[in-house]
Amino acid sequence: MKMKDTLTWRDIQETPALLEAFTARAGGLEKTALRGGDKSVYLVGRGSSGTATLFAKYIWEEYAGTITNFIHPHSIFEARKPLNFKGAAAWAFSQSGRSQDIVACLRRLMGWGARGVAVTNEADLKKNPLARLAGRHILLSNSRELPVAATKSFILQLWAVLWTAQAWSRCFRPADFKAAVKAAAAAVNEDYGGDELVRRVKRANMLGFVGRGAFNAVAEDSALKFREMAMAHALGYSAAEFLHGPVGAYTKKDLVFLFSPSAAVPEDIRRVMTALDGRGTPYKVVLPPKGVKFPFNCVPVDIRMKLLALRLALARGLDPDNPHGLKKVTPTF
Amino acid sequence: MKMKDTLTWRDIQETPALLEAFTARAGGLEKTALRGGDKSVYLVGRGSSGTATLFAKYIWEEYAGTITNFIHPHSIFEARKPLNFKGAAAWAFSQSGRSQDIVACLRRLMGWGARGVAVTNEADLKKNPLARLAGRHILLSNSRELPVAATKSFILQLWAVLWTAQAWSRCFRPADFKAAVKAAAAAVNEDYGGDELVRRVKRANMLGFVGRGAFNAVAEDSALKFREMAMAHALGYSAAEFLHGPVGAYTKKDLVFLFSPSAAVPEDIRRVMTALDGRGTPYKVVLPPKGVKFPFNCVPVDIRMKLLALRLALARGLDPDNPHGLKKVTPTF
Repeated sequence: MKMKDTLTWRDIQETPALLEAFTARAGGLEKTALRGGDKSVYLVGRGSSGTATLFAKYIWEEYAGTITNFIHPHSIFEARKPLNFKGAAAWAFSQSGRSQDIVACLRRLMGWGARGVAVTNEADLKKNPLARLAGRHILLSNSRELPVAATKSFILQLWAVLWTAQAWSRCFRPADFKAAVKAAAAAVNEDYGGDELVRRVKRANMLGFVGRGAFNAVAEDSALKFREMAMAHALGYSAAEFLHGPVGAYTKKDLVFLFSPSAAVPEDIRRVMTALDGRGTPYKVVLPPKGVKFPFNCVPVDIRMKLLALRLALARGLDPDNPHGLKKVTPTF
Repeated sequence: MKMKDTLTWRDIQETPALLEAFTARAGGLEKTALRGGDKSVYLVGRGSSGTATLFAKYIWEEYAGTITNFIHPHSIFEARKPLNFKGAAAWAFSQSGRSQDIVACLRRLMGWGARGVAVTNEADLKKNPLARLAGRHILLSNSRELPVAATKSFILQLWAVLWTAQAWSRCFRPADFKAAVKAAAAAVNEDYGGDELVRRVKRANMLGFVGRGAFNAVAEDSALKFREMAMAHALGYSAAEFLHGPVGAYTKKDLVFLFSPSAAVPEDIRRVMTALDGRGTPYKVVLPPKGVKFPFNCVPVDIRMKLLALRLALARGLDPDNPHGLKKVTPTF
């Protein structure tokens, strides 16, 4: 199977144009990007959509003065007494808009007084019960995503989060968004680390991904994609959490990716490097591309890691679009 | 090194008596267990204290009508604008009461209007800056914890969470608490699974721990303790999350623990069993002891797993009290 024949590769190639298309519609967020009376929001999502909510927590709390909380569907379903969500804004993230438990969870929250916002990649409301229920819809793109592992829709979720922060607090410059699209266009054609990096990743028993703040979300989602696409044992951590215990299990046979938010590697990532040096665990520091600032450099770095997961899957002879053979994917576009 | 010579073993042995001592003081929670005006709470903690906050989220949302949110210190420190915590209740969990970043984080939250609650295991306020700052202190016990890995203090955190739910909403029966202490007393002397289970765990390349709701917190903390004490690659998951991707990386060489909340294994855990059967991945279903109901059976099951981590550490020739040799622990009691 050739990389360019995979749906995942085609999805990733589309990303820069879809980011620009979202930008053209971003003015609509003034109406849809709802907050609660106390300027807080509640987010729910699973898998990739869950790591997108983690990105939102960091961006919205750090840049947009907005307290950002997570909903765990299990406790919503099991609650013996109503929870006081009156006037709260509940954002539900689901690529398809059809994730049954997310729809059921939002319904329950709205029954307790929350107002809903759906973030989905499904333009057709007939096929999108989540957007119909919420009544407010942030559409990521008009381009369906068919592979099991979400790539372009995850990057578009990050993009929607950044534009929402901008709608709430004008915290970024328009040039930041433009630079990110340019960096994304470069990243989709990059052969990051070359074949040598693919070989190192393939040899590793365990892959670790360590980032701080917004890059913690990129780390978590990278790990998820290496698991989903390439069936690797892969885990994401924050730098603080990693040194708190997980580092103790890493050996010479593993490989750890460390995400630096800037060309100058910050102190907390350096501490992880020192700890890994002491254990003889190989690592790779992922420096962001030039010309785009934090947190916007999360976008090209995320693309780079998703392409690497795709390359690893192919090197292992797996079908990255459908690695577990669990779900038939029919390309119908 | 013999098990009975370890500080960790002695800590675990003490647990049932410390649970009873906490029960005797639980009436004090009426004053200290603060909620925000909208009956929500914000929790912060790292490592074991972080998994205790996860347990709190499930228990308080499911039984006590209390929305329970997490604070990520990173975004609190990085916030460019004040976050609106006026009237919010911020609970900080730290075994020692001296975790610097947790103290700094609570200080910032209180500067933005939050009222603080400290949950610690340090009775001496002179040595407890967190409790001094918060002004409200929930003391777990009068017995210091010296090993690197928190065992008794974690179980006491679960206990404080259960008693707090009781103070808020009288959702449990006094007999539930008594049954849990009795089950804990049995668990500290149990040789769960015998040497055969230790051998299976020792052979495994990767240990997975899967639970739902409150048992998700037990799963996460079990994984943490296997990493800290026994330097194993170990990971905790919720059942939904595990099937969403991580299961794809598990092979015949790994071992997965599945926590059942009842003698009858629920449907979502059965789905995980089916998926693991399909992959040939060995697993062990951990059934709770009889005579104690969910969620109280989390207490003896947690003790069982912590003792198993201790037994594995010793089987590997490690010092479970201080496995990385990073920190000198001097037994001074």
